[in-house]
Amino acid sequence: MRQTFEDSAHPSFGPLHTPLIRAAMAEQALDGFLIPHEDEHQNEYLPAANDRLAWATGFTGSAGAAVILKDRAAVFVDGRYTIQVRDQVDQGLFEIRDLVEGGVPAYLRETARAGWTIGYDPRLHSPDALGHLREAAAKAGAALKPVETNPLDAAWGQARPPQPKAPITPHPLEYAGEDSAAKRARLGADLAGQGAEAAVLTAPASIAWLFNIRGGDVIRTPLPLGQAILNADGTARLFLDPDKVTPELPAWLGNAVTLETPADLDGALRDLNGRKVLADPAVTSAWYFEALEAAGASVIRGADPTALPRACKNAVEIAGTRRAHIRDGAALTRFLHWLATEGQATLPDELEAVTRLEAFREATGALKDLSFDTIAGATANGAICHYHPTRRLNRRTQAGSLLLIDSGGQYLDGTTDVTRTVAMGEPTADMVRHFTLVLRGNLALARVRFPAGTTGSALDALARLPLWAAGLDYDHGTGHGVGSYLGVHEGPHRIAKAPNTVALRPGMIVSNEPGFYKEGEYGIRIENLQYVTEPAPIPGGERPMLGFETLTLAPIDRRLIARDMLSDEERAQLNAYHARVAATVGPLVPADVRAWLEEACAPI
Amino acid sequence: MRQTFEDSAHPSFGPLHTPLIRAAMAEQALDGFLIPHEDEHQNEYLPAANDRLAWATGFTGSAGAAVILKDRAAVFVDGRYTIQVRDQVDQGLFEIRDLVEGGVPAYLRETARAGWTIGYDPRLHSPDALGHLREAAAKAGAALKPVETNPLDAAWGQARPPQPKAPITPHPLEYAGEDSAAKRARLGADLAGQGAEAAVLTAPASIAWLFNIRGGDVIRTPLPLGQAILNADGTARLFLDPDKVTPELPAWLGNAVTLETPADLDGALRDLNGRKVLADPAVTSAWYFEALEAAGASVIRGADPTALPRACKNAVEIAGTRRAHIRDGAALTRFLHWLATEGQATLPDELEAVTRLEAFREATGALKDLSFDTIAGATANGAICHYHPTRRLNRRTQAGSLLLIDSGGQYLDGTTDVTRTVAMGEPTADMVRHFTLVLRGNLALARVRFPAGTTGSALDALARLPLWAAGLDYDHGTGHGVGSYLGVHEGPHRIAKAPNTVALRPGMIVSNEPGFYKEGEYGIRIENLQYVTEPAPIPGGERPMLGFETLTLAPIDRRLIARDMLSDEERAQLNAYHARVAATVGPLVPADVRAWLEEACAPI
Repeated sequence: MRQTFEDSAHPSFGPLHTPLIRAAMAEQALDGFLIPHEDEHQNEYLPAANDRLAWATGFTGSAGAAVILKDRAAVFVDGRYTIQVRDQVDQGLFEIRDLVEGGVPAYLRETARAGWTIGYDPRLHSPDALGHLREAAAKAGAALKPVETNPLDAAWGQARPPQPKAPITPHPLEYAGEDSAAKRARLGADLAGQGAEAAVLTAPASIAWLFNIRGGDVIRTPLPLGQAILNADGTARLFLDPDKVTPELPAWLGNAVTLETPADLDGALRDLNGRKVLADPAVTSAWYFEALEAAGASVIRGADPTALPRACKNAVEIAGTRRAHIRDGAALTRFLHWLATEGQATLPDELEAVTRLEAFREATGALKDLSFDTIAGATANGAICHYHPTRRLNRRTQAGSLLLIDSGGQYLDGTTDVTRTVAMGEPTADMVRHFTLVLRGNLALARVRFPAGTTGSALDALARLPLWAAGLDYDHGTGHGVGSYLGVHEGPHRIAKAPNTVALRPGMIVSNEPGFYKEGEYGIRIENLQYVTEPAPIPGGERPMLGFETLTLAPIDRRLIARDMLSDEERAQLNAYHARVAATVGPLVPADVRAWLEEACAPI
Repeated sequence: MRQTFEDSAHPSFGPLHTPLIRAAMAEQALDGFLIPHEDEHQNEYLPAANDRLAWATGFTGSAGAAVILKDRAAVFVDGRYTIQVRDQVDQGLFEIRDLVEGGVPAYLRETARAGWTIGYDPRLHSPDALGHLREAAAKAGAALKPVETNPLDAAWGQARPPQPKAPITPHPLEYAGEDSAAKRARLGADLAGQGAEAAVLTAPASIAWLFNIRGGDVIRTPLPLGQAILNADGTARLFLDPDKVTPELPAWLGNAVTLETPADLDGALRDLNGRKVLADPAVTSAWYFEALEAAGASVIRGADPTALPRACKNAVEIAGTRRAHIRDGAALTRFLHWLATEGQATLPDELEAVTRLEAFREATGALKDLSFDTIAGATANGAICHYHPTRRLNRRTQAGSLLLIDSGGQYLDGTTDVTRTVAMGEPTADMVRHFTLVLRGNLALARVRFPAGTTGSALDALARLPLWAAGLDYDHGTGHGVGSYLGVHEGPHRIAKAPNTVALRPGMIVSNEPGFYKEGEYGIRIENLQYVTEPAPIPGGERPMLGFETLTLAPIDRRLIARDMLSDEERAQLNAYHARVAATVGPLVPADVRAWLEEACAPI
C-alpha cells in the first residue's frame, strides 16, 4: 500500500515548535520570520525534510505560508484549504488568513511595526514573491532581511528528517520522444535568440525533462532534486548528489553534460562572471539571483526555457499518455464496478475505497507511484476541496449520498489524474441537478474550438456558465497542466479565473475539472484530462481552430444525470464519450466488469 | 453637419514632412525619433494641433506609432487598421509593422545600431510604454534620450494648428449625480489609505469627472485639457488655460479648488517636495514622473484614483444614460426606417447614410456632439474595422449587400455607441449565417450571470464561441467601457482577449460588439451598450450573481437572422429585447416609423 492514512502533522506542532522558532529568531535579532510552503526548489509536493510549513504550524496543504512575528503569528491558505486549515492548525496561536486576498503582504502592512527586522530564507522565496513582501514591509516601516541560517531549520535540528537520496535513472527515448542533446540544442538556440549565454535551472521538473532523467526525491512525482546550467551551445553542467547517481547515468548524459556535485554549484555560478545568464524569477529562488549578481553575471529575467517545450508534449509522449490513460481507465473502471456492485451493498468507508482503488491500479503491473494521495470524500468530506482521507477524518459512505474520488497514477508512459463522483444508493434531486450542471460545464470545455493565441483564462468561464446561471460556482481553478511521467500539476498554462498570458498550444495536457461543493453535505467534481489538438479547418470556416481531445476514459455516473437538462448537442457528446470508453476500456476488464461497463456507458 | 468627409491627412504627408523632421533631428544629433499617437494628455482622440502621427505619416487611426530613423522609418498599427494604413501611408517611405506583435520595441531591437541616440518627447510617452522601448534600444546598443524641443513640433512650425481653447462649463448635478466636493473627499480618503498625500491627474477625463466640468478641446469628447493635483484632504489645484475659464467656473469649483494657469504647474510640482505623490504610469507622461522626482517628491506608482469610481456610474448617471439611449434609439430607429423604405429603393451611398443619421440625431434637439465619426461601411468597406467614410473611399450600397453603421451621440445625460448591420435587398445565405453567429455571441454576452470578481477577459469568449465553432473570429475586442457624457472609450474595464485584471462592477457601462468581416465583401457587427447590474440572488442558488442590462434600444435586422440557428432560449431573449425596443421607442417616433418598428420587432 503506497498511501498511508496517518496524519503527518498535528495541531500541537504550532504550540510545540513556534517557541523554538521564536528562540532561534531572537538569536538573530529577528522580529519576525516568513515561512513559505515552497522549498529550495519551489516544489509543490515536498520531501518531508523540506515541509517546514507543516512542522511549524501543522498545516499540510499543497500551498500556503506562515508568518511568525514575535508577538503574533498567522497561517495563510487559499480557498481550497479553508476548512482543512481550521482542523489542522491551533487557532489560539495562529490567525487564519486568505493567501490570495491580501495574503502575506497585507498582513505585514497591518502588523509589522516601524523599525522591525523580518527575516526570510532567500533560498525559499522567488524574487517575484519577495518583491511584494519587501514593498509591504517597507510600507509598515519594517525591513526584510535575508538570513544565512534558517531559524526554523535551526529549531528543527536533529528532529528534521534527512534529505532524500533516491536513485536517478534514465527516462528512455521510447517515453521521452526527443533525446536530451536535441532538447539542449533547441533550447540553447532559443537562449542565444534571447541574448543569453546560459540559463540557470533549479526546478526539478525542468532538469528531469531536459536531461531525460527521473528520480524519487519527492513523493508522488519522479523528480530528481538538483540544479543545472544550460549553455547556449547545448552543453550543460548538472549538479546532483553523487549518492543519487546510478552507474548508467554518466553514459546516458553523454560528454556534453558535465556531472558535478552540489558543492560545485557555488563555483559554477562564480564562473558565470561577465556572462549573460537567464533565470526565471518565478521559479528560481532569490538566492540564485543574488549569487549571480555577486558573481558579476548579467542576469536576464525570463521564463524557465524548459517550461513551454516541456508543456507541449511530442507525438511519442501523447501516444504514451493515451496508453497510460487506457490502462488507468481500466483500473478505475474495475473500481467503479466494485463500487456499483459490492460497494452499494457494503457502503465502504473512504479508506476502504482508497485501498481498493490502489489495488486495482497496482494490478496493472505498471504503476510507478500514485500521482497524488487519492482523495476519497464521502458525504460531507466531499465538500472539502483537496481533502485527504486519514484515519481520524475517515467517513463511511451512506445510502443517498455521494462519494467523490480524485486520483491518478504515475506510469512510465504518462501521468493520470481523474475525478469521478458516484451516487451511493438513491441520489436526491438536488444532487442530480448539481451534478448535471457540473457535467454541462465539463462538456462545454471539452468540445470548444478556439483560435491560436487563446489562453486558459479565456476558456475558464465555459466550465462555470451553467453553475453561474444557477447562482452557483466553485472556488478552485478549472484546469492545470499535467506532465509526462512528471508533475501532476505543471505550468505554464492553466485554465482558471486568474489571468494567464500563456496561450494553449498543441500537445499541452490540461485537466477539465469543474465542481460544486455543498458545504456539510456533499462534493461533486468531474475531471478528465484532455490535450490540445493541432489547428484544423472547420467546413465553411476561414481559420483553422485548435480543440481538445479527452484522454481520460471512465464512465460518468448516469444515475446522477438529469437527461432533460442536457441539450441534444450535450447528450450526443456524452453518449459519444461513453461509447468510446466502452469500446476502449471494455476489452481490458473482466467479463462481469465489461457487462456492467456496457450498461454504465449506454446512451442517455 | 458635424461630420466631414474630407481626408484630414494624405499619403504625401510622409514624403513632405519626414525630411523636415529628419533635419530637426539632425540639429539635435538624433539618429532616430519616436512618434506615438498619444499626446501630452495620453488622449485617444486628438486636437488637430496634437495629431503628430498623422502629420508625419498620413495615418489617421486612433492608435498607432511611428519611428523615424535617419536611414529608414516605420508605421505601427494594430489589427483594426491594417487595411486603412496601406491606403494612407507611403509605403516607399514607411515600412508597415504590427503595433501589438513585437511593436516598436522589436523594431528598435532589429534596426537601431550600437551607439545611436534615439530621441523621444517625455511629454508624450507614459513610463509604462517607455520601459519597453528603453529596454529594446539597450539591447541594440542604442540609447533613448528625452528631448527638450520636439523635433517634429519644430518641423511643423507655423503650419501647426493652434491649441484648442474651448470654454469649460459646469456639468450639473442632475447629470453628474455626485458633487465634486464629495468625490474629492472620497478619493482623498482613498489616497490617504494608500499612503499618498496627493495625486497628480493629467487625463482630461479624470479632471472632467472629478470637478464635474466639461470642455470641448478634443473633437467628439467634451474634454477639458488641463492638469490637477488632488490632495488627500480633498482640496485641489486645477490648472486650466485662463482663456477657457468661463465666468461661472470659479464659483462652481468652490473655495477648496484653486484655479491656476498651466504656467503655474511647474512650481506646483516643485511644491510637492518631500511629499508622497501618486501618479499613474499608464496614463501620465514620463515628464511628470521626472519632474516629481526632480522636485524631491516620493512618487507612488498606482492607478489613476478617478478611473474606477468614474467607471462605476451612480444611479443618476444610469438614469441619465437610459434617457439618452431611449432618445438616441428613437433617432436611430427613424434612420433604420428610412433605410428600410426609401433607402432600399435609392440605395444610398455611405455619405448619404451618415448625413441622414446625423440629421435624425440632430433633430432630437439634445445632441451635443457625435460620440465619434459615424462609420458607415457599405459592401466591402464594411469589412474594414474602424473605417471612416470619406469622399474618396465612399461606396454606394448595392442590392444583395450589407451596410454596417457604427455611430453614437454625446448628450448631457449620456454617451451612446451602437452598431447595426442592415441588409440592402436580399441577403445571401452566407450573410444570414454569419450574422446569426454574431447575434448568438451578442445574446450570450447580454444574458450571462457572473459572480463578483469576474473580469471582462473571462467573458470575452462568450461572444466568440458561435463564431469559433464555425471556424471564424474577429480581430478586435468585444467590449469597451463608455463614459457618462465623456469618452466613448473608457477604462479600466474591458471585454477582450487581452488579460484585464479589473473586475466588472455594478454600474460599469460596457459595449457588447462581436462582429465578422468577410474581406472584400461585407462586414457585420452588432453592438449594444449594457451596464453591470447589482448582484442579485437566483432561485435555488447560493451566490448572488451580477449581470447586464442592455441600454441600447434599436431593432436588429430580422431579415439577417436564421431562425433555425437559434435555440429556444436565444429566440426568447431576442424577442423580449425587440418587444422592449418597440414598447420604449415606439411612442417617440412618427406613426409610419412606429408601424414599421412594430414589424421590425415582431417575434421571430
